[in-house]
Parts: sequence; C-alpha cells; structure tokens
Amino acid sequence: MKREPDFAAPSSRPLDDVLRWCDGVAQNGPDELVIEEPLEIRVRGRAVSVTMRTPGHDDELAAGFLLTENVIRGAADVLGISVCERNEEGNLVNVQLAPEVKVDFDRLTRHVFASSSCGLCGKATIDAISQQFAPVESDVRFSAELIASLPHQMRSLQTAFDRTGGLHGAAIFDERGKMLVLREDVGRHNAVDKVLGKAVLEGWLPLSRHLLLISGRSSFEIMQKSLAGGVPIVAAVSAPSSLAVEFARRNGQTLVGFLRDRRMNVYAHPQRVSFDAGPPVVG
Amino acid sequence: MKREPDFAAPSSRPLDDVLRWCDGVAQNGPDELVIEEPLEIRVRGRAVSVTMRTPGHDDELAAGFLLTENVIRGAADVLGISVCERNEEGNLVNVQLAPEVKVDFDRLTRHVFASSSCGLCGKATIDAISQQFAPVESDVRFSAELIASLPHQMRSLQTAFDRTGGLHGAAIFDERGKMLVLREDVGRHNAVDKVLGKAVLEGWLPLSRHLLLISGRSSFEIMQKSLAGGVPIVAAVSAPSSLAVEFARRNGQTLVGFLRDRRMNVYAHPQRVSFDAGPPVVG
Repeated sequence: MKREPDFAAPSSRPLDDVLRWCDGVAQNGPDELVIEEPLEIRVRGRAVSVTMRTPGHDDELAAGFLLTENVIRGAADVLGISVCERNEEGNLVNVQLAPEVKVDFDRLTRHVFASSSCGLCGKATIDAISQQFAPVESDVRFSAELIASLPHQMRSLQTAFDRTGGLHGAAIFDERGKMLVLREDVGRHNAVDKVLGKAVLEGWLPLSRHLLLISGRSSFEIMQKSLAGGVPIVAAVSAPSSLAVEFARRNGQTLVGFLRDRRMNVYAHPQRVSFDAGPPVVG
Repeated sequence: MKREPDFAAPSSRPLDDVLRWCDGVAQNGPDELVIEEPLEIRVRGRAVSVTMRTPGHDDELAAGFLLTENVIRGAADVLGISVCERNEEGNLVNVQLAPEVKVDFDRLTRHVFASSSCGLCGKATIDAISQQFAPVESDVRFSAELIASLPHQMRSLQTAFDRTGGLHGAAIFDERGKMLVLREDVGRHNAVDKVLGKAVLEGWLPLSRHLLLISGRSSFEIMQKSLAGGVPIVAAVSAPSSLAVEFARRNGQTLVGFLRDRRMNVYAHPQRVSFDAGPPVVG
C-alpha cells in the first residue's frame, strides 16, 4: 500500500506569554500547548469527515475512521493515503480505496447527522446509530495484575501529555502485556481511531487477543469503535457510561473501568479477567 | 414561551453486578452509572442534531445547541420546546421557532459534515468552520482570588459526578462569584450547551459580565460556544488546546486554564483578571 513517507508532525507548540498565578503571585512565562487543527478526510473526491484533531499519524486516523464507520475491513481495502498537495497546512488527506470497496455516502452522512423521517418518530436508539459489527468471541484472558500494570506503562510513554497536560491517550496491548502502539490526541475518539488505524494498516485485524487501554472515560462510541477492531477487552482509567456497559454486555466485550491505583471495576464479561487470589467473593 | 412542565430526569442509574478488584482482592457489588442516551433535536419537522447526552434539561440542551449553531439569538426566537409524545424514551425534542427565524438547514448539515468542493482543496480552516460571532467587548474584571475559589464551589454541587465519576460539569457565575446555573453531562459540549441554553431561556444573554467554568479541557468548540453567549471569561480546570488560545485571543475572550489547587494560567486577555498582590512580574 502506498503511503506518504512520513506522517509525523509535532503534537504541541510553545507559547511564550502565559500569565501564571500561584497562591497570590503572578508571573509571565512560557508554556506548551497541544495542537488542535481540523482534518478533512476525503474518499473518491468527497469529504466524509472533518474532525478537530492533533496533527500526526493522519493516515492512521483516516484508516481508523473508515474502519470504525464500517467502510473498510482491512489493509487490502486501502490502496494509498496521501496529503493533498495544494493544502499547505496538511489538513486534508485523500484515501484511495480499492475499486471493489463500496462507499455508502448517504449512510456516512446520516451517521453524523440524522434525518430520520417523522414516521420513525425520532427513535434514535442504539440500533439506529449502531454500525452492526459482529459480537466478539475470544477466549483470551488477562490477569488482573497484568491489567493493573498497564496504565503506568502507557503513562510513562505519553510524552506529549507530559508537556501539555491536554491529550488523551489510547494504546493496544497484546496478551503478554506488550504495548504495540500508543497514540495521543486532543480528541479521545481520534486517539482510538489512530491506534485502530495503525492496526488496520499493519494487518493486525481482528485484534482478538488484545486489550485496548484509554486514558479517559468509556462511552458508547468508544465501545463501538473497539468492536469494529474486534477488541475483546477495553480498559479505561475513568468511568464508563450506562450505554458503554450495555453495549459491551450485548457484544461480548469485557469492560474495565476506574483502572487506577491498583484498583479496577469490571462491568461486563469478567470471564476474561483472571484473579490470582481465587474466584471473586459475591458481596 | 411554552415549555414542558418538567424536563428533569435521572442522570445516573444503579448497576448491581459490578466486579471490583482492589490490590488482589475481587468482590461483586453495586455501582452507579452515568446515563448516556441519544437525543434528537428537531426543528420544523427536520432533525438538526443527534447527540449522545445525559438525560435531563433537554430543553436547555436544544436551546443551547441552536444558540451556538447561530440559529437563535434569544428567548424570543423560541415559541416552545416539547418532547415528542410518540417517542417513549423521551429522546426526541421538537423546538418550535418563531416564524421569522431563518434556518439554513444546508449550513447546519455542512457544519457537522463538510462537503467542500475540490476547488476549496480541503481548506477546512478556522474560518470555514467558525460561526462568525462578534468578538467580546466587556470591561468586567474578576479577581484571581475569586476565580480560584470557583472550582470548589462547582465541585461541591456536582452531585451526579459524586455518584458516578463520569460527568463533565459547566457553570455560569456572575461577577460577584454567584453561581447562576450548573449542569452535568456525559458530553463536555452538552454541559456547555445546557448552561448556555438556560441563559437563553431565562433571557440572560449576552453574558457580558459573566464567567463560564468547565471541569475539563478547553477546545476550539468550547470557546466558540461561549462566544455565542457573549461570555468574556472562560475558565477550565484542565489544559487548553492551541486553537482554543488562538480563538480566545482573536475574539477578545479571557482564557484561564489549569485552574486548580490555588493555581491558574491565563492564556488570553489577562486584563480581566485582577491580581491583588500587584501587577504581574515579567519573568
């Protein structure tokens, strides 16, 4: 597959004149800001998405977006990804799809901007906005001890977060706890799209023996994206929403939340988490 | 203006069977989850938005959305807001606009789903996605000491966050530091839409003597929404993005970040923050 030689880009930039106040004392000084810029993703000459993202790995972001929108299923569907030459800021990528890939532009539009008829009476339910990916079937297991160690591993490599404090992180781990990819972005969904896009482009799909770790909260959309990649275990440092739990239970995904300080809650399909200290106590 | 008698709704729900692991010990028990459900906002029989939100104050969410999308400018533009009776889940609201309000459905669609022609070459820049609200002109000033006290005031009233740990908060304060409204939502933008929608429906606009406080990070979209309400000072507990700072500086808004533990950084227009200990030291 033809890709740009380099999709690397700085994720933060310095700012000289920030006024800092601390307990009564004010002082001017430099700071570092996470970069937020729009990216347009184009397929067959048509824009399919404009998202506010942190530059860098835009090829992965585009591939992940198309995977999670159910347009592509693997690396073979993508012939090339390139930056539009006439766009100086580099904020437009063209994805060249294989001719046999069908693109339902109307459905893509509907997904982000519903126009359901009045007969449907606004029944914008999970079913209506779901992408209908197959449920996960995987007998992979991670020990609770291993899972508890992953946030520290991710956090220690979040270099842009260290500089700016303004980035979400997402990472994919294999069943031995090895981190395969880590991406940071000002948008939580973008960070997940980037790691899934990396998996698409590297031919790792389905991620049926893997764990997806995210630095923030888990929502319906995060669970749906992870299901598109076939991920059996999603772990989040913060809280899940009601719909994230409902979605995970319905689709066979293990969902871990509040993963911090040697603690975690397992909200769905705990059979993939092994507890060395024996079976759980029913409280 | 005609509104439903009651747009209150539970923002969280209990879950019985959560597996908790803590430092080697696993135990089953109850938990409380923040509710995430889709809401469709409809105007003149057409859907203009489907967003994943936490139920409650959907009338404010709809009004705030229409304000920040530059459709309405005040309470007089809204004749009524009601829940579709045939929608059992209550996940559809109809907003009845005054006849003279113009709605550019194409622009609304374009905003969330760009379809710029190839001639534009994907120049999805700030200008292209901005709503072009007037810059803020306000001589209001808040003391640094007062601003530093606001997160504690907001946090002490975030009852749903206490139960779930999964909600963003947004609040509007007047210049004496009195909190006028606080809303929580699983979506950061929704929380801001709700407090701005409350301001629209109560006739508080423009919020030219007010401060908007948010529990998370500030982004381009948060700044644009606050500008739609005429807010001169936006303060966030976490980091701003590069575009948030750029937008604030361009539009005359004071932007405070990392507001916690008696600290803050002022990234734009610090003239609205008074420092009792004298003028800032140039470091």
